[in-house]
Amino acid sequence: MRTDLCDLLGIEHPIVGFSPSEHVVAAISRAGGLGVLGCVRFNDAAELDTVLTWLDHSTGGRPYGVDVVMPSSVPTEGLPDDLGKMIPPGHRDFVESTLLRLGVPPLDAASTRPGVLGWLHSVARSHVEVALNHPVRLIANALGPPPADVITQAHQRGLLVAALAGRADHARSHVASGVDLVVAQGYEAGGHTGEIAGMVLVPEVVDAVDVPVLAAGGIGSGRQIAAALALGARGVWMGSVWLGTTEYQSGPALREALLRASSSDTVRSRVYSGKPARLLRNRWTEAWSDREAPAPLPMPLQNLLVSQAHDRLMASGDPTVVPMPVGQIVGRMNEVRPVAEVLTDLVTEADETLVRLHKLL
Amino acid sequence: MRTDLCDLLGIEHPIVGFSPSEHVVAAISRAGGLGVLGCVRFNDAAELDTVLTWLDHSTGGRPYGVDVVMPSSVPTEGLPDDLGKMIPPGHRDFVESTLLRLGVPPLDAASTRPGVLGWLHSVARSHVEVALNHPVRLIANALGPPPADVITQAHQRGLLVAALAGRADHARSHVASGVDLVVAQGYEAGGHTGEIAGMVLVPEVVDAVDVPVLAAGGIGSGRQIAAALALGARGVWMGSVWLGTTEYQSGPALREALLRASSSDTVRSRVYSGKPARLLRNRWTEAWSDREAPAPLPMPLQNLLVSQAHDRLMASGDPTVVPMPVGQIVGRMNEVRPVAEVLTDLVTEADETLVRLHKLL
Repeated sequence: MRTDLCDLLGIEHPIVGFSPSEHVVAAISRAGGLGVLGCVRFNDAAELDTVLTWLDHSTGGRPYGVDVVMPSSVPTEGLPDDLGKMIPPGHRDFVESTLLRLGVPPLDAASTRPGVLGWLHSVARSHVEVALNHPVRLIANALGPPPADVITQAHQRGLLVAALAGRADHARSHVASGVDLVVAQGYEAGGHTGEIAGMVLVPEVVDAVDVPVLAAGGIGSGRQIAAALALGARGVWMGSVWLGTTEYQSGPALREALLRASSSDTVRSRVYSGKPARLLRNRWTEAWSDREAPAPLPMPLQNLLVSQAHDRLMASGDPTVVPMPVGQIVGRMNEVRPVAEVLTDLVTEADETLVRLHKLL
Repeated sequence: MRTDLCDLLGIEHPIVGFSPSEHVVAAISRAGGLGVLGCVRFNDAAELDTVLTWLDHSTGGRPYGVDVVMPSSVPTEGLPDDLGKMIPPGHRDFVESTLLRLGVPPLDAASTRPGVLGWLHSVARSHVEVALNHPVRLIANALGPPPADVITQAHQRGLLVAALAGRADHARSHVASGVDLVVAQGYEAGGHTGEIAGMVLVPEVVDAVDVPVLAAGGIGSGRQIAAALALGARGVWMGSVWLGTTEYQSGPALREALLRASSSDTVRSRVYSGKPARLLRNRWTEAWSDREAPAPLPMPLQNLLVSQAHDRLMASGDPTVVPMPVGQIVGRMNEVRPVAEVLTDLVTEADETLVRLHKLL
């Protein structure tokens, strides 16, 4: 299976794989897909620089990309301390009392780190600055088109720019802003996601724009890749599936939670960042659906509110509370395998599906 | 495009089309699909008998099916008057004051009819009794497997039994109950629907059961049919799309609302029947999301509560209040065409898609 996306990105298979782990990203690119590194976790641009330098030497000369979280309209900005003052005390009390109720121990001082600042516009910009000094093939933005000057700079350096879209009208405006690729991300996807399911969204976006479209959301098998291509996508964007690979070095609690979850065990909620994102449904997300729970705060305050709580939840070793963005495909993630094996199976099954379909004619 | 579903049902194309309109059903069957008549609107079994007799002579000798709404566990039962007493007065007040606020005039006495009793178990059973005396090929149940004796009777007369499922475990239990076909209906579908999107649900159900699976939800084009077949479905079940055909004799308000709606203009709500169902999002459904709105009642009380209101809303001629189950594919329903033309286009585009996909190898 080959599409024009392969030529555009210089890859063997039309599979783009998003991961916060550079080990997963390198393995995807080495296996013939395009690995895309999620940058939101890097508070320190120098740390991202180090990781990208490692990636430059770890993909076997194959291309890779980066993913930043940059709202097209600049949200509340400021130093963490100033932002912290904007968080209502009632919200902090709710987080503390919920952690207590869930039996989540505090972190020791050494493990305590500041909130994830990657949600801040200024930090996302520093990610872009760093990425532009590496041989990155693609820069993707999870929240629509990056600002115009970022697109211009990327194009000047020969990079392609991708933006996620959950509606056809958004996709149209992304392309009008200069975006080269649209990722049509359906309701079933992990992380930030809209209301329209991929079966409806993908062909709508394909028909709405004149750039290649990648299908995202719910894709974890070759049959689903073939379905995405049937809908008119030139390739797929996959994120959740890599959380179940050997290269994704998660703790045992997260791994157990992912392996155990069915496709019914996710929820679309504003708990994580302030914008609707699909997460593992568990005792933590359920606590926020209680009648007495406060409404989540707007971005970036919600993340600032919960980021230390999320560190505590993750460190607790309790699979029933781990805070994790993941899509409905989590129900099919039932064993841990190396990235290369997953990718080979995806391609083989997709090819077999295309052959099977042709026989129906 | 042909699958083994065609042989099983004795049809030309693997397309099953659900409609409450016998005119649509007859046209689908004549065009080589399987038309399936929604029976819930028939309070009077004799009226259904008359319509099925008409269908027997109007499909050009092609097979057709019926769809009943029969919960597997028998819900609250009784005469409309007794059931009516179980509706809290606050709910009735909310409905009345909302209609007043939305500017919806009352019906004259001649247009006032009792609530739709098709939701009652006893009435659904009378539908089955009538159907068994006609040359029906398929009996489908919107709410899981029909009771065991209904399945036995259907099998004795050579009918196939289908059941809708929104989760793989439900599909498994449907098949254990003796169902011959499973309709895997995704989140994006109109009417009663679950949380899992078709892209994830269809392959899960296909892998979970050993009977043929139809994909439902969001399907309105040949590309989407090809995608459903890629996911492992043997055919598709389509409902919403026929609302936009010449044969569906809707009033101008409904037609305008359907043509105008985008894929973002639906909502999954318990307003219609007490169980989550996807409807056109409009001023009526929004009123039920207000903070002061009461929670919808369980089935069948909610339908009894709102059925006269729905008649009033439909008769109002106001496209911003029509109560209508429809899927996210409504965004692509932009012109009114005859059923036969829609069906020919579906088949042509699906065939073209299978050819296009094969070239990617």
